[in-house]
Amino acid sequence: MSRNIKFIQGNEVCVEAALYAGLDFFAGYPITPSTEIAEHLAQRLPQIGGRFIQMEDEIASICAIIGASLTGHKVMTATSGPGFSLMQEALGYAVMTEIPCVIVNVQRGGPSTGLPTQVSQGDVMQARWGTHGDHAIVALTASTHQDVFDVTVDAFNIAETYRTPVILLFDEVVGHMRERVEIPEPGELELVQRLRTSVKGGVDYHPYLPREDGRLPMSDFGALHRYNVTGLYHDMWGFPTDNPKIVQGLLRHLIDKINNHVNQITRYKELYIEDADCVLISYGSAARSARHTVINRRARGEKLGLLELQSLWPFPEDLVREKCARAKHIVVVEMNMGQIARRVKMAVDTPDKVFLANRIDGSFISEPDIKQVLRIIRGKGV
Amino acid sequence: MSRNIKFIQGNEVCVEAALYAGLDFFAGYPITPSTEIAEHLAQRLPQIGGRFIQMEDEIASICAIIGASLTGHKVMTATSGPGFSLMQEALGYAVMTEIPCVIVNVQRGGPSTGLPTQVSQGDVMQARWGTHGDHAIVALTASTHQDVFDVTVDAFNIAETYRTPVILLFDEVVGHMRERVEIPEPGELELVQRLRTSVKGGVDYHPYLPREDGRLPMSDFGALHRYNVTGLYHDMWGFPTDNPKIVQGLLRHLIDKINNHVNQITRYKELYIEDADCVLISYGSAARSARHTVINRRARGEKLGLLELQSLWPFPEDLVREKCARAKHIVVVEMNMGQIARRVKMAVDTPDKVFLANRIDGSFISEPDIKQVLRIIRGKGV
Amino acid sequence: MSRNIKFIQGNEVCVEAALYAGLDFFAGYPITPSTEIAEHLAQRLPQIGGRFIQMEDEIASICAIIGASLTGHKVMTATSGPGFSLMQEALGYAVMTEIPCVIVNVQRGGPSTGLPTQVSQGDVMQARWGTHGDHAIVALTASTHQDVFDVTVDAFNIAETYRTPVILLFDEVVGHMRERVEIPEPGELELVQRLRTSVKGGVDYHPYLPREDGRLPMSDFGALHRYNVTGLYHDMWGFPTDNPKIVQGLLRHLIDKINNHVNQITRYKELYIEDADCVLISYGSAARSARHTVINRRARGEKLGLLELQSLWPFPEDLVREKCARAKHIVVVEMNMGQIARRVKMAVDTPDKVFLANRIDGSFISEPDIKQVLRIIRGKGV
Amino acid sequence: MSRNIKFIQGNEVCVEAALYAGLDFFAGYPITPSTEIAEHLAQRLPQIGGRFIQMEDEIASICAIIGASLTGHKVMTATSGPGFSLMQEALGYAVMTEIPCVIVNVQRGGPSTGLPTQVSQGDVMQARWGTHGDHAIVALTASTHQDVFDVTVDAFNIAETYRTPVILLFDEVVGHMRERVEIPEPGELELVQRLRTSVKGGVDYHPYLPREDGRLPMSDFGALHRYNVTGLYHDMWGFPTDNPKIVQGLLRHLIDKINNHVNQITRYKELYIEDADCVLISYGSAARSARHTVINRRARGEKLGLLELQSLWPFPEDLVREKCARAKHIVVVEMNMGQIARRVKMAVDTPDKVFLANRIDGSFISEPDIKQVLRIIRGKGV
Repeated sequence: MSRNIKFIQGNEVCVEAALYAGLDFFAGYPITPSTEIAEHLAQRLPQIGGRFIQMEDEIASICAIIGASLTGHKVMTATSGPGFSLMQEALGYAVMTEIPCVIVNVQRGGPSTGLPTQVSQGDVMQARWGTHGDHAIVALTASTHQDVFDVTVDAFNIAETYRTPVILLFDEVVGHMRERVEIPEPGELELVQRLRTSVKGGVDYHPYLPREDGRLPMSDFGALHRYNVTGLYHDMWGFPTDNPKIVQGLLRHLIDKINNHVNQITRYKELYIEDADCVLISYGSAARSARHTVINRRARGEKLGLLELQSLWPFPEDLVREKCARAKHIVVVEMNMGQIARRVKMAVDTPDKVFLANRIDGSFISEPDIKQVLRIIRGKGV
Repeated sequence: MSRNIKFIQGNEVCVEAALYAGLDFFAGYPITPSTEIAEHLAQRLPQIGGRFIQMEDEIASICAIIGASLTGHKVMTATSGPGFSLMQEALGYAVMTEIPCVIVNVQRGGPSTGLPTQVSQGDVMQARWGTHGDHAIVALTASTHQDVFDVTVDAFNIAETYRTPVILLFDEVVGHMRERVEIPEPGELELVQRLRTSVKGGVDYHPYLPREDGRLPMSDFGALHRYNVTGLYHDMWGFPTDNPKIVQGLLRHLIDKINNHVNQITRYKELYIEDADCVLISYGSAARSARHTVINRRARGEKLGLLELQSLWPFPEDLVREKCARAKHIVVVEMNMGQIARRVKMAVDTPDKVFLANRIDGSFISEPDIKQVLRIIRGKGV
Repeated sequence: MSRNIKFIQGNEVCVEAALYAGLDFFAGYPITPSTEIAEHLAQRLPQIGGRFIQMEDEIASICAIIGASLTGHKVMTATSGPGFSLMQEALGYAVMTEIPCVIVNVQRGGPSTGLPTQVSQGDVMQARWGTHGDHAIVALTASTHQDVFDVTVDAFNIAETYRTPVILLFDEVVGHMRERVEIPEPGELELVQRLRTSVKGGVDYHPYLPREDGRLPMSDFGALHRYNVTGLYHDMWGFPTDNPKIVQGLLRHLIDKINNHVNQITRYKELYIEDADCVLISYGSAARSARHTVINRRARGEKLGLLELQSLWPFPEDLVREKCARAKHIVVVEMNMGQIARRVKMAVDTPDKVFLANRIDGSFISEPDIKQVLRIIRGKGV
Repeated sequence: MSRNIKFIQGNEVCVEAALYAGLDFFAGYPITPSTEIAEHLAQRLPQIGGRFIQMEDEIASICAIIGASLTGHKVMTATSGPGFSLMQEALGYAVMTEIPCVIVNVQRGGPSTGLPTQVSQGDVMQARWGTHGDHAIVALTASTHQDVFDVTVDAFNIAETYRTPVILLFDEVVGHMRERVEIPEPGELELVQRLRTSVKGGVDYHPYLPREDGRLPMSDFGALHRYNVTGLYHDMWGFPTDNPKIVQGLLRHLIDKINNHVNQITRYKELYIEDADCVLISYGSAARSARHTVINRRARGEKLGLLELQSLWPFPEDLVREKCARAKHIVVVEMNMGQIARRVKMAVDTPDKVFLANRIDGSFISEPDIKQVLRIIRGKGV
């Protein structure tokens, strides 16, 4: 049986996976290092009867996909740091109105225009806290092209399941690197379709009344039912309210629907964790170097293990605590000032055993960088 | 001697303090609950020869003040959550280009348009992490009108001292409440003036070469020197570079100039901390209820103390650890899902003794809410 | 084989179990929410040749069963808070004279007439300390109808084994709720019969001389032997004495015969205790909500465990300490101001980790009440 | 100036103090060792126009004084253990209906009729928990006749201030011993008079609506206003309710009005506490031996101190913790199985350093008993 194997950039893998997951509407504004996503979709979407729109900026882009999603489409936009900052207001609107959408941030060096063509993982905390107000969010990442495919499909499934924006937090190395990827056959990966209401026209439809399982059936906007969609706190009809009980209930719903499903949302890979004295925790392209280090040092008898996080938010706190329970050292490998390292410190029982191996200069972190940190924390000096 | 005493809203106090500090340029777009700041400045600025511009939106507003600051003015804008989200990209630009400016966020309930007229403290983490990329930031807050005056003056001083945007994170209760405030006489509070370069025209001016003390003399843009200002990583002349050493040096400079001065930037008040079994940590309007609780429970013999934070970022980690060292319980009182509580957990030696007394329904947190949590953490139930 | 399955109220289960255990004399005065016990026994006892007497009040009721027990019958009375208060003097008499009897208190809201038809667990400490003077007591409870059956049989067995009043501390929810119960076949549960003296008539019988195993054989009053029964301190013949040595010996005997058999008397159930980070301790109907919470939160990955106490007095101190040894939090779930929570604090090594999840308003405590406390003690606020 | 000095029994001191405090109604039933209180009042009350009634039993006695108090009188009854057990139901009624009254329990050995003429302090826990349901209570005690006078006056003052039954927990030694006492002049001790409502007839009087300071003005029953008095949970008009909010509010009011004033209610004496390595805690007649021991051992250079509690309930937890903070050993001296010792363990930071020096045989505890315990806990053996 011939398999559909490609040797392509990560950005193109993301495109193929999005189409596989059912994407049929994309709006975006080009920005390095995410531009190839828009480029490829500009070609691919019309071929399958989908819509591609280049918008005037990133605010317009996210607003367009929110609207399209509400009318029943599976939607995505893609950008990098500066564009992602511009999207923060509308991202909050999608959170509040519970509209499924996928936002790709192929990270480059920040802040500001920063380092357009260099790698960074500096937007991890922004992905969590970039919009105002308490809220929960889902952010996925990947280190290999096969994983880029899988988490992209996952992103669409999670967006539909929980009616939430999902952020795909890739980085310049993953986006631009070419690597082998096998495109699954149709049906090979499970797809979650839009949950539509079964309420008939002319009957009371409560757009914001969750079912018992917490899911919220939608009605394509402009079709059978008329209803209100607002970024204000709203009741089960979608109409604004400042009733404290409803306000608290809605905020808790928005947070709990994500955070209470952390186990279902969490994706990770592990390597030699069981007997590891030292656990490396990493994600995205940095995890490639971490994995490399673990395999090489194991060959020399060092009890290293790897926990590769593929979902960063909601943070898999219990998983991290559990996997690190017997480690003497935990080293977080990432390309920022320790955004996930701080989160790991909060998760584990002994924050003092958490160390950071990082790079913040636009260069890709590599095995020697990590080995250097391992020496120092073992008291072996430079 | 007659004193200048007023009974005004917190938003108006902020205006008076900004003018006292030397504000002469304001650009903004009205949004509840910050609107009174713009309203009052629209009247007051022209009276003193300053400029007030109502812009078409919040992006334009922050861009206008950044530009005005670069030409030598003391500048401010004011907004609330949704507008603050829109400002995130340009805020990062001000961070990267090191342009002094003050951004007021009078917080209301979020996410999205949320609860325009109700109180919240939900934007604390966004203030820290709203823009993309690693960076440091200064955010101040206050619980009384006298403190609003003082921290507003401080905000301008810090912005000039460290060439950084400073966020004034007020909230709806502080902004709209009327309270007695005594306007200091001119000269009573120290003011930091713009540090201008002494480099003469026609001579090499290095706009991004810090002095030995870390401060960076400015030259009014459009005046004596021509130089480049960019959001890209840049060298001492302000020109773009991706040289890893310069990139790392600039990022560390941007972060260290703030975080290494945490002691100079930190503002706080304390009450009965010395012998407190239970330390309440609070800020903004929530601290009013915390203070009330401490005073009332002390009268009943309970050893409560209060640490009121007036600077949230950079987070005064050492201060919090020290003040909480002998406390059996630490209760963070805030109107969000525990944004500062999580930060306190990271600061103290025993995270398990940190609890959260919060409200997230748009209602002002009050003494009974705090007492309820105190009862439960003392094992006393309802 | 067909089983005897019923769908009845807890009060009726108590009746069936008492009859199963050999009850043949009941005296009582009706009071909500215990009345159904008297009602059903008024029908059932005559059917089996037993005696049912409705007395003029609760004092007469307990005095009648004490007398009947002394003549050789298995006896019970049933009441609620106010009636239980009235029984305190005679209860002490039964303690001092070591007369087996079972007293059911189907708790309602107190103090005073309180809340006749609402649930409470407010009489736990009264059960221990309601009568004057140092003494020990046995009090059992249950959360399901099958357990009501079992502990009721146990109560009769313990009363006979240790010659002591045994209190069945049920509550309104358990008493009035209908639930499936399977009545065991005769012989399925072990029954303890009255230990009668083998001393012949005309020979010296020492009614208050314990055997080597501490048990005290009885002689049906009015039958073979004449002897003295008094509430005063007494010697082995039952005659009053104030000899300090005998006084101290008798008081220690009364206490030790119960407290030294705490392991034999203790009944409990546990769920997921082994690896629980947080142990809920509960009893009576409250344990239903605690169990529900544990099961639901386990499904979400939270390491909750349940220790359900079915004997409250003598308090199973060692059991509680052992089961809670590795828990980070212990939450006592009960419907009072923390009567058992205080006792748990005394039992465990770290009283500070004991919290109270309670309701005191006559409403049944439910999962959301418990979850709220769990949130707060984990520092997560509302 | 001649002083009014007497050499009388403690029971008679109690009578004189009650009259001094304004007692004008007593109902009782004689029981050793409290009988002298009734005897003396039978003579003294008619002399001052008060009423003395001998009732048919203790239930009638407490009900009579509750009714008389409601009509505006200062009232008292006196009993010992068995009678106190009989009073438990009506005591709860007085708690619930907030009717000021004083109940004297001159303790003898229990349980049951126990040791009528011998000393004990076995009713301490019953005083706290004898009636059913959660509630708070005030119980005072004394070791010298001068203190008996003072705490008796206090009892009436507290009863009126907080509208609560107050228990005077004396013991056989204090009651029967003769000792010098100086009766204060009128006006020398402050007296609290009944707080009567100022609401006029025909106007809405809310008998159960506390003032802002928590006090509840009364209206003499049968006089100006008609209102309902019930042992059921009731609203501000005194009418029954099972509204959960009102139920919880009332229960918390009943408990908080006492427990929140623990500092005002607490009475104690101390001796050499400041530098004590070993603190004796005692109360009632046992404190006489404890004081004797401290004075004698201090003369030999042993750093003993005494904390004599004169109020047992609400338990002065903070006081005990504070006074014991620097002690290496804490020895509770009492004549029971450690009822207050257990409470002290809960109050202090290190329960392991709390020991019990007691007697339970009807004999008065003396210095040699205490010295023996001191030797053992210092590792010196018997």
